[in-house]
Amino acid sequence: MPIRNIAVGRFEEATHPDALKQGLAEFISTLVFVFAGSGSGIAFNQLTNNGAATPAGLIAAAIAHAFGLFVAVSIAANISGGHVNPAVTFGAFVGGNITLFRGLVYIIAQLLGSIVACFLLEFATAGWVAPAFSVGAGVGVWNALVLEIVMTFGLVYTVYATAVDPKKGSLGTIAPIAIGFIVGANILAGGPFSGASMNPAVAFGPAVVGWSWANHWIYWAGPLIGGGLAGLIYEFVFISHTHEQLPTTDY
Amino acid sequence: MPIRNIAVGRFEEATHPDALKQGLAEFISTLVFVFAGSGSGIAFNQLTNNGAATPAGLIAAAIAHAFGLFVAVSIAANISGGHVNPAVTFGAFVGGNITLFRGLVYIIAQLLGSIVACFLLEFATAGWVAPAFSVGAGVGVWNALVLEIVMTFGLVYTVYATAVDPKKGSLGTIAPIAIGFIVGANILAGGPFSGASMNPAVAFGPAVVGWSWANHWIYWAGPLIGGGLAGLIYEFVFISHTHEQLPTTDY
Amino acid sequence: MPIRNIAVGRFEEATHPDALKQGLAEFISTLVFVFAGSGSGIAFNQLTNNGAATPAGLIAAAIAHAFGLFVAVSIAANISGGHVNPAVTFGAFVGGNITLFRGLVYIIAQLLGSIVACFLLEFATAGWVAPAFSVGAGVGVWNALVLEIVMTFGLVYTVYATAVDPKKGSLGTIAPIAIGFIVGANILAGGPFSGASMNPAVAFGPAVVGWSWANHWIYWAGPLIGGGLAGLIYEFVFISHTHEQLPTTDY
Amino acid sequence: MPIRNIAVGRFEEATHPDALKQGLAEFISTLVFVFAGSGSGIAFNQLTNNGAATPAGLIAAAIAHAFGLFVAVSIAANISGGHVNPAVTFGAFVGGNITLFRGLVYIIAQLLGSIVACFLLEFATAGWVAPAFSVGAGVGVWNALVLEIVMTFGLVYTVYATAVDPKKGSLGTIAPIAIGFIVGANILAGGPFSGASMNPAVAFGPAVVGWSWANHWIYWAGPLIGGGLAGLIYEFVFISHTHEQLPTTDY
Repeated sequence: MPIRNIAVGRFEEATHPDALKQGLAEFISTLVFVFAGSGSGIAFNQLTNNGAATPAGLIAAAIAHAFGLFVAVSIAANISGGHVNPAVTFGAFVGGNITLFRGLVYIIAQLLGSIVACFLLEFATAGWVAPAFSVGAGVGVWNALVLEIVMTFGLVYTVYATAVDPKKGSLGTIAPIAIGFIVGANILAGGPFSGASMNPAVAFGPAVVGWSWANHWIYWAGPLIGGGLAGLIYEFVFISHTHEQLPTTDY
Repeated sequence: MPIRNIAVGRFEEATHPDALKQGLAEFISTLVFVFAGSGSGIAFNQLTNNGAATPAGLIAAAIAHAFGLFVAVSIAANISGGHVNPAVTFGAFVGGNITLFRGLVYIIAQLLGSIVACFLLEFATAGWVAPAFSVGAGVGVWNALVLEIVMTFGLVYTVYATAVDPKKGSLGTIAPIAIGFIVGANILAGGPFSGASMNPAVAFGPAVVGWSWANHWIYWAGPLIGGGLAGLIYEFVFISHTHEQLPTTDY
Repeated sequence: MPIRNIAVGRFEEATHPDALKQGLAEFISTLVFVFAGSGSGIAFNQLTNNGAATPAGLIAAAIAHAFGLFVAVSIAANISGGHVNPAVTFGAFVGGNITLFRGLVYIIAQLLGSIVACFLLEFATAGWVAPAFSVGAGVGVWNALVLEIVMTFGLVYTVYATAVDPKKGSLGTIAPIAIGFIVGANILAGGPFSGASMNPAVAFGPAVVGWSWANHWIYWAGPLIGGGLAGLIYEFVFISHTHEQLPTTDY
Repeated sequence: MPIRNIAVGRFEEATHPDALKQGLAEFISTLVFVFAGSGSGIAFNQLTNNGAATPAGLIAAAIAHAFGLFVAVSIAANISGGHVNPAVTFGAFVGGNITLFRGLVYIIAQLLGSIVACFLLEFATAGWVAPAFSVGAGVGVWNALVLEIVMTFGLVYTVYATAVDPKKGSLGTIAPIAIGFIVGANILAGGPFSGASMNPAVAFGPAVVGWSWANHWIYWAGPLIGGGLAGLIYEFVFISHTHEQLPTTDY
């Protein structure tokens, strides 16, 4: 199977920059995303003196992540494809859309971006540590794992349908918005139960800065399983069939 | 009248996949949509200990449904047309834009997607049942029926104007956003009175999982009447007239 | 000066439908917009037992109007141009972009759409009357008038820059979103002071249904002055200059 | 290095209008943006009797600025490029994308637009002064400075990636939305700590009208440093490299 590049926008450009430049784009995008996303949790804690979560706080988190991820995907789209998420990179890998080497570069850059974002947040907010992801009261780890699987399946399926699929057409124009907004929608559902990470990098930065690793494996296993499943299903059900019908070489 | 396919994006592609693949796309899209939408209601209940509805809760529901439906329509657009709603499929049928057989496949897939979403939500949230749609205090069934008719009319009219109409032009690019956002806007108006379903599948999943059927017929009759009216009016007033003037065969 | 048609999308199509069909499109769009917009005010009153306005209520109103107007403009864009507002139609008229006759048809259709929306809301909500626009406590009529002038100037200027200007390019694709969202943004600023109507039709429906006419003139004078100024300035500063430089006849 | 014009949309048009017309476009856009943005703060104060900031108030500010800036950028995009921010203009200057003279015209126009917006708000709201930006309780000036640097870096990087980069492709269509929404996302994170200005003009108007200059330098130094860094990095890492590879003259 040919290796395609997940690029929102112009595919042909994405082959020019080297892996280092693509890694830098992933680093900056993840930094920008986590700064806004985790920062919205810190802002809520500041405004409420570490008060309990409320519907308004959940809305703030959803909008910050939706808007932030939309932008983070946009600004890297034409350079690295705008993954901003190890689960997206893994989903691209299992579908044969990125090489192992480049995938590892992306994931390392995403993790570093998240860590730097959390350290910058700690300084910029005069000491607040980005809140670690955790399993909600009364929720078991298997519940939270399934939640992360289902939500990340939806996210990576969205990446495939709107940005990877060669049939995407004009959907590609709004792909970054769709990718950001499915995360916002899922936060409004899953936030109180698992934190609704859908992204190992998003969970990793706060875990490092706050050195808080309880149940951290959920935020790797869930997104990677969900993202991998989405990549496999979309690639082999909805794209490969097209390959048979359209055996051209222009993508 | 020729059968056109409701596709947001590239029409020509939508004829390749077979009905089974289209059904799978509708199933996944409805699952993703209901998971976020009904999940937002569960999250509110979790955060407030089953508290009474508030404006913040209504905003959360509106955003979750708006963002979730936008994405659900997008990710199925080039495969099945992105109906994600039996009322849209029925509106397409009465306007002559989908065959009876394919319409039934779509609707069955949508209902299954909603049911599976609600079962997944129940497990992932450690026991919460997706809240069933119900008529608000002081509101009669005929009031709620009219509310669902008017709101679904607006939704299916939006589908026709932005995604079905051959004159849509660049509007097609933002059609999924418009389709999602009219649902969000209507929830902010109708939520406290009928739940603002506008979609029999959205009401069916919670009814099955919670086995709660009080006034359930409203959530079929209202959307189907409103969606059917929209399909008839838009097709015969705004599209067929164009047929007479532009008797070409390219759509 | 040639009469151009304000169409978001494909200009050439907009000349086919006759004035009656365009009026019907304006009627339906305004109905859909006012149903969601005024309905969000009713929903807030229902949820809070007619409680005082709160920031959450203002956000709900802003989102309902932003999303609703975006969709209302979209669904009429290729038929009537998607004015949905007598101030937009007046702004188009003073800039020479619509004839007097067609402008009057549009405005009558918009007013009827708003009235029908409010009557439907009254029935569908079992008796709630759409809240009339009024001047906030401590605010004088001249303050409110200036507020409506400035906000409507921004709205109609947005219509001109993104949908009317022949130089709009790809901006035309997102024009309906911009038109809806400037109304949402302005409601977050002006809502507590004048109600932030920016649209005589939006104020007229609730005034008729609730028979409440106090200071109603503000909601005509403000939007018409602001919209007229925007039309004059944009047309003669930013478009006419282009005419001189590009004296072609293709628009 | 050739001087390119930052234009969202059609580049070739942006060379026709003269500097005065471009300055007028920047003036109007900044006025519209600040009117909605600062106005949302005034509306919160009116609704809560100058109450303490809450998550709902932060959401209102974020949406007002996100929607308002998106529109402000859109309506000036084809005339001046839609900077609406001295930090964007400075970032364009350091990257070689605007001349010194035109940059100064832009910045003066932006500052005047912000001042006029605040005076109009004061009259339209019967006396409310737009709230000045200030450093949050417990936050030092260096913390706030770093916060403004990081957030403005993200904003100007977004401008470059989606609107300036010749490789932007279809991203250009949604560039104004991305530019507005990164500001909304950042406000949800940084609002309680520095006010999340990211824009000297946005801070300057309220400072003039309320004659409040405490720590005002932060709102110039932070955005200019962050915006300048973004311009340098994006231009020399992600654009200039392309110049070497694609030494054509068509942009």
